[in-house]
This record gives sequence, structure tokens and C-alpha cells, in this order.
Amino acid sequence: MNILGLIVEYNPFHNGHFYHMQESKKAAKADVTIAVMSGTFLQRGEPALLPKWERARMALEAGADLVVELPYVYSSQKASTFANGAVSILDMLGAAHLCFGSEDGKIEPFYNAIKQISQNEQSYSTSIKQYMNQGMSYPKALSLSFETINALKGELADLTKPNNILGFQYVSSILEQGSLMKAHTIQRTSAGYHDEALPSGDIASATSLRKAIFSGNETLKEIKPYVPESTYRILSGWSKEGNPFLSWERYFPYLQYNVLSMSGKELSEIYEVEEGLENRLKSSIKESSSFQELMERLKTKRYTWTRLQRMCVHVLTRTTKRQMEEAVNGERCPFIRVLGMNPSGQRYLGSIKKNLKIPLITNVHSFEHPALSLDLKAANIYAMGFPKQKRITRLKAEYATPPVRVGYEE
Amino acid sequence: MNILGLIVEYNPFHNGHFYHMQESKKAAKADVTIAVMSGTFLQRGEPALLPKWERARMALEAGADLVVELPYVYSSQKASTFANGAVSILDMLGAAHLCFGSEDGKIEPFYNAIKQISQNEQSYSTSIKQYMNQGMSYPKALSLSFETINALKGELADLTKPNNILGFQYVSSILEQGSLMKAHTIQRTSAGYHDEALPSGDIASATSLRKAIFSGNETLKEIKPYVPESTYRILSGWSKEGNPFLSWERYFPYLQYNVLSMSGKELSEIYEVEEGLENRLKSSIKESSSFQELMERLKTKRYTWTRLQRMCVHVLTRTTKRQMEEAVNGERCPFIRVLGMNPSGQRYLGSIKKNLKIPLITNVHSFEHPALSLDLKAANIYAMGFPKQKRITRLKAEYATPPVRVGYEE
Repeated sequence: MNILGLIVEYNPFHNGHFYHMQESKKAAKADVTIAVMSGTFLQRGEPALLPKWERARMALEAGADLVVELPYVYSSQKASTFANGAVSILDMLGAAHLCFGSEDGKIEPFYNAIKQISQNEQSYSTSIKQYMNQGMSYPKALSLSFETINALKGELADLTKPNNILGFQYVSSILEQGSLMKAHTIQRTSAGYHDEALPSGDIASATSLRKAIFSGNETLKEIKPYVPESTYRILSGWSKEGNPFLSWERYFPYLQYNVLSMSGKELSEIYEVEEGLENRLKSSIKESSSFQELMERLKTKRYTWTRLQRMCVHVLTRTTKRQMEEAVNGERCPFIRVLGMNPSGQRYLGSIKKNLKIPLITNVHSFEHPALSLDLKAANIYAMGFPKQKRITRLKAEYATPPVRVGYEE
Repeated sequence: MNILGLIVEYNPFHNGHFYHMQESKKAAKADVTIAVMSGTFLQRGEPALLPKWERARMALEAGADLVVELPYVYSSQKASTFANGAVSILDMLGAAHLCFGSEDGKIEPFYNAIKQISQNEQSYSTSIKQYMNQGMSYPKALSLSFETINALKGELADLTKPNNILGFQYVSSILEQGSLMKAHTIQRTSAGYHDEALPSGDIASATSLRKAIFSGNETLKEIKPYVPESTYRILSGWSKEGNPFLSWERYFPYLQYNVLSMSGKELSEIYEVEEGLENRLKSSIKESSSFQELMERLKTKRYTWTRLQRMCVHVLTRTTKRQMEEAVNGERCPFIRVLGMNPSGQRYLGSIKKNLKIPLITNVHSFEHPALSLDLKAANIYAMGFPKQKRITRLKAEYATPPVRVGYEE
């Protein structure tokens, strides 16, 4: 059986994702498609637009067979950690193929880039340090250093492009973990990762879709052309039940309260709060009346916007450096939590269950682990972004929601 | 000069307070009246209806000459700690008279009660322990134990009445601190401390006034007969500027967020979280969609409502047992913060300034102390109860507001 793995956030699932899933299935000749998906807080350091269960359903209705959660300790993280967690999960689930979207669209340049870097490791890391000493952000330093060692221009993946960077990390993780997974890549269609405006055609970036949702008083009409019918139905249903789409602004009061009630020392113990950022946070928070305003005050050349957003997520969830260290014990994910499946995914899961090296969780009460505790805490805090009358229901959902089932006979 | 001290919360200042102030001035033949007033969070474990500056103005316009703040470390506390802090401040400010309101109305029974208890100390404390072992609250155990040693019934203050209890603690603190202050008491008029309904006549309890304010969509018409014109003007002005009256419900989301993001162990380090209350808090918070609901879930025979509310205040401000211990170093208050004055209060303050044993604060930037840090933190968190667009202003108010001045020529 050909098992295909995808690493996703689906925030929300759109036509670009659908295209990628179709092409990936073809490339891998997939019998079963597994998506590992961020839960509550995402790689860019933002709360998910809507809960993991709804996003898992979008994936299943669009053709995924099994959706599992990428835990908090990997999801709101820099690309390399994010990749490590996701690749380890797919590997343990027996995926033979990983297919990611990239600007490049060919897989060899990624392997070439890794090789080139490893052959020039010393000068590469020296160069990164030099750029950072000049006050540059880590990703900027990486990308500039990469350009300096890029002797075989054209045959290496261009690591200045956001999806190429992620893909590079996926391939690196596969190699580092000694996985036998085969990497594929599909060229992304026109919509850029960061594009904010809705394009013509039927493919738009998730960024532009979220922007349209929030700018249009959370109406969905504008985004209809860019998402599968199933996504549209799920988003509309969510909205009709009186649920909000979640964004940072809903969490800003808690973040503000939190920073105001913590000492500088306590703040400096939070994961990703480095180099005196606690002081910057403490002084900026008193001047800001929105998350956007806070971010504009925090931003410097030294840190990317997403790096700072991720830091804010960890402040919001009050995740300390020590907790993160305890929870990420070794590179591989310590458990797999099932978010949803169809009959084919369930059959596959049944067939590998016995040989799985780590616990498979369908009920969070049955298992304890520091990383799972962080997931539950993140979910509790995610629930606080809902209107008051919805909070108790959402607080319970994390514990009570069974895996989503799609494609079963009634 | 006869200096009169009053211990107050003025939440809000009403006709009963005015009557008490007038009678106290007569009893003490006062030349100068000093009120020591709780700042942001009060003895009953509630946020103040409106900020200390507005409440200080009410006091000054009604006849106080000087208003100073009772710091957080004393204000949201059981009666004995509250009394210790307040009495020590008045004593250091040179007050020769303390006059409190009581159900009893005569001062000798208070001294008698103290004498009687100290003569029966052993059996009194044994009795308290026994009642508490039966699961009773501390105040209930105190009051029942007092009844058992009350051999001279009629000549002792009735320590089952709330204002008598406070008065008893004031007199005890005076004696314990070796202060030369003379205690007086004025009988409270008909309105009971805990009365919730507005009475006929012009004197109502602060509890019933707050209830009327909140039940009537924060309109003030209903309470007009029960407050001095100056109070009414200040409350109306506050409201007209688009400010809310603060209550626990405005802070409930932060409390909920806070409990959800803290571990049981962290919670148990919070001041007043004792005997497994952290578990009760953690389980109740997930089921409650309002502060009222939470309190109903938390309440047991073992703890009074106000004791639990105070605990919630400390959870909200995240004040640990250790922080409280560091901040209350010795019985006497470590500084005096001036909230407001009239020319006579200012002259008096000028005359004693040189001989004051502790710093006099009119600008919080000029002084550092763990207890002052807690005041500032409490004020920051108090600010979070305001609507979003008012928060930054309120966050700055604590640092920028000079003492209120009343009765000066323009």
C-alpha cells in the first residue's frame, strides 16, 4: 500500500489545498492519505480560524483519509521544529511519501541544497552568525548565507521563498531522522503564500481568505469562489451556529492582562522570550490597545513578525522554556492524536495499530504526557477567545469530542 | 490639635458615611480628619466600584481633610490584617482618635470583650479549633467561641455582628501596637451592613446602593436619595464620561483564563489558596460562565463568601504567599500614599512630614517596595476591567494621577 503524508494547517482548507492534495495523490500513487495538522495555535503564531475538528472535517471531506494533530510543542514553532514533529509523526504512521508544495516545484534542488549546505557547513554557520551579529533576523541570515554558498545557482532550491524554506526543512528532517520516506514537491500555483488580496481565478492564499473573512464582518460570500463546497458548508454552518472566527484580537485582552500581572523575571522564563524581549513586551503592552498595535511596537529588524507572534502565543499560554524542554524530549513526537478519519483511514489505522511505537490517542483522558498537557492548556485558552456564552461548551469540547468520521453509512 | 482617624472604603460614599463622619468629628473634637481608604480591591474581596481618586474626592468633598491609601497587602484581607494596616497608618500620621461605626455603639464593651478573651485565651483558642475541626468557617468559629466565654453578657460587644467584629479588631490593633490612639464608636443607623434592598429614609447600606446601581443598568437615579450631592455629582460625572462601574463580573474572564492557564501547583502557591482549594477552583472554573456561578460552586460551610472572594482577588492579581510575606514585613505599613487633601490636610501633612518614620508617597515613581509593587500590579489589573478603549488611559492613571485637591482657590 502506498501511504502519502501531508503536513498541513488548513486555515481554512481552500482550492489550492485541494489541488495540492490531488496532485500529491497522483505523484505518490496514494492508497491512503494522512494529513498531520496543527491544532489550536499555528506555525505563524496565530490562533486557528476555527477548531481542529472542523478543520479536520474539511480535510476529510476533500479527500484525506486520516487526520492527526501536530501537538502544540511542534505547531507554534520555527520551521525546523515544526518539520521535525510533523515528519516524525508521518514516519511513525508508515507514510512512504511526503509531498509538499513549493515555489520551486522540483525535488532535486532541495536535496542539492541540503548537500551544498552540509559540504559548506562551517562557512554557512559562520556566515549566519555574522549576519545575526549585524542585527538581522535568523531567517534573513539563513537566506543571505545560503545565497553566498549557492555556487551551483539554478540547481539549488531558492531558500529565500517561504514554501521552499518549509520544504527544505521537511527534507532535512527526513534525512536527519533516517526515515525512508520519499519526498515529492508540487509547484504552487500563482497565489503567493503571503498574498493579502483576493486574486482572479479560483486559487487564493489562506492569508487573503482570512483577511476577506475578517474585513467583511465575517461574511463568507467573498471567499466562496476559492474554497471547495465542503469547506464553504462547514464554515457557513460554524458561523450560523453563532460561532466566531478566531483571531489574535480576541486574545489580546488576555495577553495584556497576562503581561501586566507577570514580573519581568517571570516573563523571561517564557519560551522564546529572549534578549530582553520581556522589557519590550512590558513597556509596549501598556501603550497598545490592539494586538496589531502591540506587534507594530514589538517589531524590529532582529525578529520576524511570525517569530514575535509565536512568542506572544507562548506568553498567552504561559509556556515556559522548562516546560517546553520537558515536553519535547527527543526529536520524535511522543504520541499521536487522531482528529478524524474515513473508513479507509480507519482500516489503515487498525492495520498498523499493533506495531505503533507510541500511544495512539482517541480519548485524552486515557493518557498523560507533558506535551499533551500543553495541548490541553492551549485548547483551554483557545476556548477563552469565544463569546462568554460559548466558553463552557468549548472548554469541554477538547475532552469530549470524538474523532470526526466522514464517509460512513448512517 | 485633635487629629481624627477613620478607616473607610467609601464604595461609594453615602449618607451613612456622612453621618458617621460628622458624629466622629464631634466625638473627637477633630481639627483634622484623616481617612485611610482601600485602593482598588476591597476588604470583601471585590473590585472598587470606581477608582480611588474619585472615591477620595467623595471623601474630601464630604469633609475629610486628608485621604491616604490602605495598600493592597492590607485591603483585601481578613479583619485583623485589614485593621493592623489601617491602624498603623493612622498612628504614624499622628491620629489621636479612631472612630468606627458599630452595631453596639458604646466603646467599653469592646475593651471588655478584648479583656475577657485575653483572660480566657486558652479555652477561647481551643474552642475556635474545635469548631473549625467541625468544618466551620473561621469567623463562625470565632463568634461561637466568643459566645461560650461571654460570661458577662450585656457588657461585652456582640462579636456576631459584622461592624462590631471590625471594631473589635481596630481596638485590638491599637492595643497590640501600643498606640496611644483613643477609640470611639458611633452606633450605626438602621441600615444593616449586608442589607440588599433600599430602605425608606435617607440611609442605605453600600451593598444595597451597589446593587441598585448594577440592577438599574448603572443608572443612578435610584440611589440619589441616599448619597450626598457631591457623591451624586462625582458618580454622574464618571458615568457621563463613558466609564463603567466596576464589579467582579468584568474581571471574571481574566480569572477564568488565569485559572485555566495555571497548574494546580502554581495555584496552590497563591495567597489564601489553602487545603486543596486549587482543585475546587480548577474544576469549578470550567463549569461557570459568571463570577456569581463560580462563587456558588466554590462555597462551602468551611469558608465564608468574602474569604473566597478575597482568594479570587489574589488569584486574579496572582499574588503568591511568598510575595505577600515579603511585602508585609512587620506589622506596620511601610509607606503612606496620599490620595487627596484639602488645604487644612495639606498644612497638617506639612507639619508632620519631617518626623514621619516612613516615606510619604505622592509620586509612585519615586519609591520602591514589594508592597507598592503589589499596589501597582493590582491597579494594572483593575484597569483591565474597563472597556478596551479606556484601558490605556486607566493603566497610566495609576502612575500619572496627582493627589486630588479639594477646596483650593482656582
